[in-house]
Amino acid sequence: MKTHPFDKAIKLAAQDDGTWLGHTSAAYGNMVGPFGGITAAQALNAVLCHPDLLGEPVSLTVNFAAALSDGEFSVQARAARTNRSTQHWIIEMLQAGQTVLTATAVTALRRETWSVDEESMPACPLPDDVPLQKGVAPIEFVKRYELRPIVGGMPEVWDASGHSSLSQLWVRDQPPRALDFASLCAIADIFFPRVFIRRSTHVPVGTVSMTVYFHAGAEQLAKTGDGYLLGQARAQAFRNGFFDQTSQLWSHNGDLLVTTHQVVYYKE
Amino acid sequence: MKTHPFDKAIKLAAQDDGTWLGHTSAAYGNMVGPFGGITAAQALNAVLCHPDLLGEPVSLTVNFAAALSDGEFSVQARAARTNRSTQHWIIEMLQAGQTVLTATAVTALRRETWSVDEESMPACPLPDDVPLQKGVAPIEFVKRYELRPIVGGMPEVWDASGHSSLSQLWVRDQPPRALDFASLCAIADIFFPRVFIRRSTHVPVGTVSMTVYFHAGAEQLAKTGDGYLLGQARAQAFRNGFFDQTSQLWSHNGDLLVTTHQVVYYKE
Repeated sequence: MKTHPFDKAIKLAAQDDGTWLGHTSAAYGNMVGPFGGITAAQALNAVLCHPDLLGEPVSLTVNFAAALSDGEFSVQARAARTNRSTQHWIIEMLQAGQTVLTATAVTALRRETWSVDEESMPACPLPDDVPLQKGVAPIEFVKRYELRPIVGGMPEVWDASGHSSLSQLWVRDQPPRALDFASLCAIADIFFPRVFIRRSTHVPVGTVSMTVYFHAGAEQLAKTGDGYLLGQARAQAFRNGFFDQTSQLWSHNGDLLVTTHQVVYYKE
Repeated sequence: MKTHPFDKAIKLAAQDDGTWLGHTSAAYGNMVGPFGGITAAQALNAVLCHPDLLGEPVSLTVNFAAALSDGEFSVQARAARTNRSTQHWIIEMLQAGQTVLTATAVTALRRETWSVDEESMPACPLPDDVPLQKGVAPIEFVKRYELRPIVGGMPEVWDASGHSSLSQLWVRDQPPRALDFASLCAIADIFFPRVFIRRSTHVPVGTVSMTVYFHAGAEQLAKTGDGYLLGQARAQAFRNGFFDQTSQLWSHNGDLLVTTHQVVYYKE
């Protein structure tokens, strides 16, 4: 079986000093440097592969300190604290001795409890009834996802006509791949910058910090398989060079898998 | 002039090795250990006091690794990366050589740009028309805040009758204090655990990770002064021991100052 490009991209090699060596992936390239979602997944993978790992990801925050250069990077993941059922990780990614990403993660052993989704999946047409996203630019990572925008797709005309930043879309890996924590982490960053949608204006942007809350455990991810996810994103405030983006990802069955937030730099 | 209890609580003493020494504050005590908001503010203060600080806070994530014991703690704040206009911090708080908190922060020089609040302040009665929160328990930190719950206040009867986790409230320091980044950070954690509101049932809880996005700069905070803030919080998912909480804080003038998120452990 051919290795999926995502698995190739997040592959890390253990080093003797306990760090991991990875390589940026041309398949997940963005306009400048790699897609942030793949970098986040690589950082998370250093925890997922760690021999001391306790439980499954509950929370991840990645801070993009610099654009990665094409080539090798090193990742250090340190379990700063291990409790009975939770574990706290500090992660740092370096290139040429310089920090390019900082992150923290919390992993935990989860137990069955009273549960309820308060944020329900919005009513949407089925994936097969929603056309594929039209090519907006020859950006490599976009080809690694099947994107079917329902509302708030990438503007076709940049005419400053936007009035809401809300987007809803169906998304899955392309080619399809069974969902796991790493791929879900990458998909959490799939939403185009809200400032594009709100303003129908193209300005320089870059995610500064992203937080992912994993509500689903491995069993629920397995049930989702390679099915579509429904994604929803909107901004709450755009202010003096930074805006936030608050998003949800549901399984095709309507289970809320992830809630995720980011703060993004923008110019002008 | 008498020092405000908040300023006493977040005070840090510089150590020769570049770390900071602080002390838990009885005035901000919670049921077990200190109020998470004050611990977050102490962690942020290690960045705010740092001689290398560039700009103002844009983003902060704190992970509560263990309940703090009453007494001294040490904080290390390291600028992992300093760019032209942004700076990336890794923060760790220790007691008796053990990590009790991990955190990352991004600070930045902000410039005036096109700006808009997409999430408007909800229509609410004025603070003077909203009665003070009735004493729910003799918890010390609650006395440090003037809380005027509009909807979703702490249940008066724990009868499992809840059906929504939405809360809206007016809040400010008690006694009033001019707002700054540290106090805003603490207030971001003022919302009672959503599981109490949703279930009207008391279960053990503890915040695991909290992220704060600061949309306001120092100038806007100065304009807010010691006026009331309108806070709003709700959960999106409760699942197998963890729920999220997504919140906003507006100035009394209707400016969105902070959007903040947390993931919280709960039992049963």
